[in-house]
Amino acid sequence: MNIRFYNARILTMQDTKLVEGELHVKDGKISYIGSENEPDVKWDREIDCKRNLLLPGFKNAHTHSGMTLMRTYADGLPLQEWLETKIFPLEAKMSPSDVALLSKLAILEYLTSGVTAVFDMYLTPESIADAFIECGMRLVQVSGINKFGPTLEVLEERYNKLNGVNDLTSFKLGFHAEYTCDRELLEKISELAHKYHAPVYTHNSETRKEVFECRQRYGMTPTVFLNSLGMFDYGGGGYHCVHFSDEDIEVFKNRGLSVVTNPGSNTKLASGIAPVKRFLQEGINVAIGTDGPSSNNCLDMFKEMSLVFSLSNIREEDASSVDGVDVLKMATIGGAKAMGLNDCDVLSVGKWADLIMIDMHQPNMQPENDIVRNLVYSGSKQNVKLTMVAGKILYEDGKFNIGTDPEVIYREANDILRRLT
Amino acid sequence: MNIRFYNARILTMQDTKLVEGELHVKDGKISYIGSENEPDVKWDREIDCKRNLLLPGFKNAHTHSGMTLMRTYADGLPLQEWLETKIFPLEAKMSPSDVALLSKLAILEYLTSGVTAVFDMYLTPESIADAFIECGMRLVQVSGINKFGPTLEVLEERYNKLNGVNDLTSFKLGFHAEYTCDRELLEKISELAHKYHAPVYTHNSETRKEVFECRQRYGMTPTVFLNSLGMFDYGGGGYHCVHFSDEDIEVFKNRGLSVVTNPGSNTKLASGIAPVKRFLQEGINVAIGTDGPSSNNCLDMFKEMSLVFSLSNIREEDASSVDGVDVLKMATIGGAKAMGLNDCDVLSVGKWADLIMIDMHQPNMQPENDIVRNLVYSGSKQNVKLTMVAGKILYEDGKFNIGTDPEVIYREANDILRRLT
Repeated sequence: MNIRFYNARILTMQDTKLVEGELHVKDGKISYIGSENEPDVKWDREIDCKRNLLLPGFKNAHTHSGMTLMRTYADGLPLQEWLETKIFPLEAKMSPSDVALLSKLAILEYLTSGVTAVFDMYLTPESIADAFIECGMRLVQVSGINKFGPTLEVLEERYNKLNGVNDLTSFKLGFHAEYTCDRELLEKISELAHKYHAPVYTHNSETRKEVFECRQRYGMTPTVFLNSLGMFDYGGGGYHCVHFSDEDIEVFKNRGLSVVTNPGSNTKLASGIAPVKRFLQEGINVAIGTDGPSSNNCLDMFKEMSLVFSLSNIREEDASSVDGVDVLKMATIGGAKAMGLNDCDVLSVGKWADLIMIDMHQPNMQPENDIVRNLVYSGSKQNVKLTMVAGKILYEDGKFNIGTDPEVIYREANDILRRLT
Repeated sequence: MNIRFYNARILTMQDTKLVEGELHVKDGKISYIGSENEPDVKWDREIDCKRNLLLPGFKNAHTHSGMTLMRTYADGLPLQEWLETKIFPLEAKMSPSDVALLSKLAILEYLTSGVTAVFDMYLTPESIADAFIECGMRLVQVSGINKFGPTLEVLEERYNKLNGVNDLTSFKLGFHAEYTCDRELLEKISELAHKYHAPVYTHNSETRKEVFECRQRYGMTPTVFLNSLGMFDYGGGGYHCVHFSDEDIEVFKNRGLSVVTNPGSNTKLASGIAPVKRFLQEGINVAIGTDGPSSNNCLDMFKEMSLVFSLSNIREEDASSVDGVDVLKMATIGGAKAMGLNDCDVLSVGKWADLIMIDMHQPNMQPENDIVRNLVYSGSKQNVKLTMVAGKILYEDGKFNIGTDPEVIYREANDILRRLT
């Protein structure tokens, strides 16, 4: 498909200056960005952007897509109780095809929010990869291995099987959390990281309880303990990172690790507010994730962006604690960096066309004082006119194009709900 | 217009049980709610709701609509500096027709967010009332008088002129804040409240600085000081109410005052987190407002609802500090009570048809574990399919019906911006 977007304002995120003109897509990649220019090409489609805004799609850098099943199921519990009494028992009943269907439900929601890639940790990675490929959606998976399963052999097999087979999907080493793994398992994961020279990702310091108990077990915070095992010798990152010490920050800085902040989940579960301002000051890469829909309860990057500056302002008692432009960077290029996606991070020639169009002809985008900050402070899913992944339009003007009728997905999700609960 | 909504799920907010069936509107009012029932009536329109959800429209219980001009203008400043160096100088240049146009821009945004009535405090109430009436939107205004203007005589004149002339609009006594009024002016406003047996509303205890300085001036908090003047002898309420003492809470409880919480603004300006859980425990009526679009920066009640429970959970370190159902009550019946709107608070026969339709055929509303809580935890403006005020559909499937082309409003708002800044 060759697609010409014209009459656009383009925010490439290489910088935050607006380009006025057009963007061309050829065979899934960006072939031109610049002023008005219609080359002698046979277009499959020419889209008049009506001065709407094109920018890179959001990267949802931490989620558990298949947990759409548990959206608004068991609200109001603290993290540990919620996991152990409600979530784990239900997850034990889910089949690979259940997970695939529930992931498709999440994909629909990602598309409405302008998300073009997700960093997913969930059960049955094979069926999840199939679902994303079928829908044309970009996916980076990370293992959520823990002492209850699967085995290290399965992890290594998946690492080899799920990488390099498809442009849309990849698989990273990871584990659920320090508190759900024993030391021996963690040491072996670190060995795998060394064998493959691979980064490792995990839930890290989400709650005070988690940090307290790790200190009791090992005399160290989760970050310092894991680092002492050589876990991060090839980089990686942490999800949540709410309760961080100075020493933790030093580890993240020195190892070049990414923080993935999850403000929706951290407030829903009352875990706390991450020190995002400090992370930025220290030059640590920060990305944003929704976490799973059971602890949020939605997959809306506009909500997350809004919470990042809102909560930071409260934490720091400073109305300028984090700037809107920095928040937009987190949601786009910060996420891409955390996920190892350097071929779809910004809009530039040769990169994958993973992009969104923001409807500026909406009251919340007017008047045009500061378009970029306005997107962060005032934007909503309602402004997402189009979501494109690898040059394919998957969502446009409220219509989905992922190969399955959304109504079928809704019906089957409710069938699973009735069957398993 | 006689309109029949059928095949609907209806949340009346008289309670939170769902009615399955239909809702009829006749001459602007609700004439039937119940199971399937098509009387022999000539309908102007019959709307198949496709099992979507009907509920009362949201009441945005504190806003400054005309401040759409300053959306994303001067972000990142603390409240006092922002007001004094940026906002007040710009407001001094705005004409009544500027305010009317900018209010229409806000009305468009309210409609996209399912808002059917707003509690507005801003300059030139006459031109604001005209704009709302022209658009068919419901408005309760409150005076923002302060020591810089207008006079008490103007306030009384407006109170008499702007009440009772139109079903859609009314006007309440109020003043900007304790810190922008002197004692003599406040005493005279209290006299007016006694003369008209009228409730009084004001910005109250938004920042620590405000409370500290009031204590220095009068040896009392703003609430206690104002109450000592007899200001609340006929009820009323406060906007923000972030930094409240036990004594303040007692005053609100004993006088039956409403708290209007503004979490978007309180985080954007780093003012703090209101003790919403405590207010509810004490039986105080709580409503929700966006505040003006310059300190938020949007007019999105879904964002505000989400922030109410998010921030409360952080403040209380408790994942169940405020329940989603309570938040929905604040955004609907709580707002109506604060604004004195007892004829459009819930859906029941004889009340004005001020209602919205929520699109359940969206991924964020699926699967259907708990529809009501899901609306609060996961809903967004994207789910608003229809907004009706007094029986007239003002917004439907992304199209506006307020008598003026939105593009004209956007263009004129940008013209005002260029002219005044």
